[in-house]
Amino acid sequence: MKKKSQKAKEELYRRGKDVANLSACQALIEWDERTYMPLKAADQRAEMNSLLAGLIHDKFTDPKIGDLISELENSDAIKDPEAVDAVNIREFRRSYDRATKVPKRLVEELARATSLGQGVWTKGRHSGHFEEFYPLLEQILKLRKEQAEALGYKDDPYDALLEDYEPGATIAEISRVFDGFRPELVKFVHAIIDSGKRPDVSLITRSYPTERQEMFGEMVSTAIGFDYTAGRLDVTTHPFCTSFGPGDTRITTHYDPNNFAKAFFGIIHEAGHGIYDQGLPVEHWGTPMGEFVSLGIHESQSRMWENMVARSRPFWDNFLPIAKCFFPDALTGVKVEDFYFAVNDVRPSLIRIEADEVTYNLHIMLRFEMERAFFSGDLKVRDIPGAWNEKFKKYFGIAPRNDAEGCFQDVHWSAGYIGYFPTYALGNLYAAQFFVQAEKELGNLHDMFSRGEFMPLKNWLNEKIHSQGKRYRAGKLCEVITGKRLSHKPMMKYLKGKYSPLYGL
Amino acid sequence: MKKKSQKAKEELYRRGKDVANLSACQALIEWDERTYMPLKAADQRAEMNSLLAGLIHDKFTDPKIGDLISELENSDAIKDPEAVDAVNIREFRRSYDRATKVPKRLVEELARATSLGQGVWTKGRHSGHFEEFYPLLEQILKLRKEQAEALGYKDDPYDALLEDYEPGATIAEISRVFDGFRPELVKFVHAIIDSGKRPDVSLITRSYPTERQEMFGEMVSTAIGFDYTAGRLDVTTHPFCTSFGPGDTRITTHYDPNNFAKAFFGIIHEAGHGIYDQGLPVEHWGTPMGEFVSLGIHESQSRMWENMVARSRPFWDNFLPIAKCFFPDALTGVKVEDFYFAVNDVRPSLIRIEADEVTYNLHIMLRFEMERAFFSGDLKVRDIPGAWNEKFKKYFGIAPRNDAEGCFQDVHWSAGYIGYFPTYALGNLYAAQFFVQAEKELGNLHDMFSRGEFMPLKNWLNEKIHSQGKRYRAGKLCEVITGKRLSHKPMMKYLKGKYSPLYGL
Repeated sequence: MKKKSQKAKEELYRRGKDVANLSACQALIEWDERTYMPLKAADQRAEMNSLLAGLIHDKFTDPKIGDLISELENSDAIKDPEAVDAVNIREFRRSYDRATKVPKRLVEELARATSLGQGVWTKGRHSGHFEEFYPLLEQILKLRKEQAEALGYKDDPYDALLEDYEPGATIAEISRVFDGFRPELVKFVHAIIDSGKRPDVSLITRSYPTERQEMFGEMVSTAIGFDYTAGRLDVTTHPFCTSFGPGDTRITTHYDPNNFAKAFFGIIHEAGHGIYDQGLPVEHWGTPMGEFVSLGIHESQSRMWENMVARSRPFWDNFLPIAKCFFPDALTGVKVEDFYFAVNDVRPSLIRIEADEVTYNLHIMLRFEMERAFFSGDLKVRDIPGAWNEKFKKYFGIAPRNDAEGCFQDVHWSAGYIGYFPTYALGNLYAAQFFVQAEKELGNLHDMFSRGEFMPLKNWLNEKIHSQGKRYRAGKLCEVITGKRLSHKPMMKYLKGKYSPLYGL
Repeated sequence: MKKKSQKAKEELYRRGKDVANLSACQALIEWDERTYMPLKAADQRAEMNSLLAGLIHDKFTDPKIGDLISELENSDAIKDPEAVDAVNIREFRRSYDRATKVPKRLVEELARATSLGQGVWTKGRHSGHFEEFYPLLEQILKLRKEQAEALGYKDDPYDALLEDYEPGATIAEISRVFDGFRPELVKFVHAIIDSGKRPDVSLITRSYPTERQEMFGEMVSTAIGFDYTAGRLDVTTHPFCTSFGPGDTRITTHYDPNNFAKAFFGIIHEAGHGIYDQGLPVEHWGTPMGEFVSLGIHESQSRMWENMVARSRPFWDNFLPIAKCFFPDALTGVKVEDFYFAVNDVRPSLIRIEADEVTYNLHIMLRFEMERAFFSGDLKVRDIPGAWNEKFKKYFGIAPRNDAEGCFQDVHWSAGYIGYFPTYALGNLYAAQFFVQAEKELGNLHDMFSRGEFMPLKNWLNEKIHSQGKRYRAGKLCEVITGKRLSHKPMMKYLKGKYSPLYGL
């Protein structure tokens, strides 16, 4: 690299690091808001937040950053498109364009509409009536369409929104995968329902003292590789994972002393996210090469640990005897096959966030179909409830009693998050495809789990995914690792392999 | 106010509020660092901190702020020097000048020297040998002298340093007060030692389970007026109090399950600081009128609640029966007079932070004399230990075995905090003088304490001190409230009134 480009690069990276450090401050302040902030601090906190958000925006949209990127795009730094500097320049360009292409007026209108939208949505969630929410959702859709036009896209304006969450993903590609998945999955779900078999889930809702759940959760998440010297576990109403840079990744959970599964699988899920963040390459921190690929890839990590590992039979062959020491009142005499079945109870349910790993994907595909339809204008906002209930009945065989447990159960649309839902199901599919490949390279993973060995899988994920930062887009990463495009087949195979024996299919 | 001045004022206050909000972010990040930050986050956290510090400095030293202040100084806004705007302009001027008068080179050299100084001091504390620390302390003194010259002063360069902690205080004024206090106090301490009476302090070191200490501490601090819906209590190695603005004041403590006094009086002390912060006028937040007066006045609040309230006999007449419910194993059968004596054990001790409320003031006066002498050059750094030990023997009748429990026990000098120590004793003296005045206006406070009534005192402090923000300098505030200059007499009277009966003098 020429000396001048070298200087431009250093300047760009230094500025990137400043933005990353400021964003870390903001993330920490938000973490505090959700964990420990006293009640009366809310107004002041909003001011602190908006001040930081403004500073971050100003720093990142400084035209000097655009100049530096342009200069580097005309240098030999981008020769090899998958080398560190080229990746960073590509991704800085992408973020810079997305941050500067949308007029300020539109940004502000969106902030206002979604803030109002969430308020009205919350009211609707309590009352079950969403008429007041309709005009706001229409307004949000209008603004998001404008935003898509400002950002630009190749085939479909929805693709411009997908970019926020799953860079490089397109409606065409997601449809291809989901369209293969949907019919097979619906058929399989119906087979499970029709089997008439059900686990004894009362095992899960016995007495599990909170402090012991916390100790057990910390122990198991440590065993799968979450590093508590570089992280924490705290309590929040809505669990999440957040990172403030190298050495500081925090997960949260919510304990119910009469439910083992909620907090435990939540902890493992968030620890899966956390292991990804802790595995990002420290030396690239503050540049895109030190960042995660996409929400879909992030979710693939949490889902793999939560479902494919922690809900597997060999996992409980190893951990149930230990769990019995922690929870003797609940678990003495419980057989591993019964416990394993109980944590893999599949049933059609109304609420996405409570769904099992089989039906969960249907919840997502339904949302994807809905948002495609109302974003394109094919479906009017006022017709969402009817369309939702009809589809729901078809997929799940049940129907919601009202829209608070139906089409408007999630906060996403009211917050303007359109294009977000698919990442959840993509995460599941990536997880299954990665898992097959890991097993091909590492040998029988279930044997390892039954001996309490999780480091081979964790190290494989570190090497293949985490350490790569944003080098590849999600789809490309999948091809590089598994040699194949994303497909629903590994997922379907995994589900059938696991659930057919359980439900006697 | 003319329209142009009005605009300048709004602009200045807006900028002040931005600085305050950013400082609140920094304070929160530091709180996290001391409470919950994982081990491996330290390096990254230092980067976040220094970035924020830089942003705060840049925002506050923006020449535009200087221009706005100058403009307002030439307006009618400063007509009444004790009116809100005049106070704000006066204090913005003071802070702006202090932030801009010192050359950047000097700021950086001081940062480096004190950072090194603290490192070497820490080593010395472990080894007991401080020879390595001498040249660094000399360097720190040299830089602080340069800084004093840059900042300016009227009579003594030490006054310029006092300004950092106790605006408006002077060496002359502090000497006047301490010189009256010292001989009387030394005499009184010796009388106590000679009395041969000692409480049974083993009451305090029985089993006090941590969780119960926490509950009891929260209950009592709530009773004296600390608002937990606008604050928190957490655990740290070194307890402190910090505020992030209206509605968010956090205190910390450190529990020893075999010592009741450490955490309990620590909580009350920090709650005293916290009650001050929570009582600052919300409407002036972000301007000097919303800030505390000085470290001395802040300390007067913590000390009053800790010593004059929570170590009083009527306080325990009220709370000991309740404490017995929390700690039946430790306190069943314990008489209130014995407990009261045990928490008021006076004895000469080597370590300042473990000292009782009587000898504590001597620890401070000794430090004040030392730092005056070595800052002026009258005492060479290498002669500090000898001078310290001699004085210590004279005041306390005992001598340290080494400098780690002697002259270099505190971190302050290594951090460049010269001029800080006096504020601790000033706090005690202000507390005593305020307390006398409060009693004059409110009636017998001890009677109220014995009935568990603390709101009259708390509300009086809110009105007379907290709600006034930075309207008056500390000395003036004392005169406004009590009608008199600060004197050691109320303190001496308080100590004699309390300890003479305890020690049969």
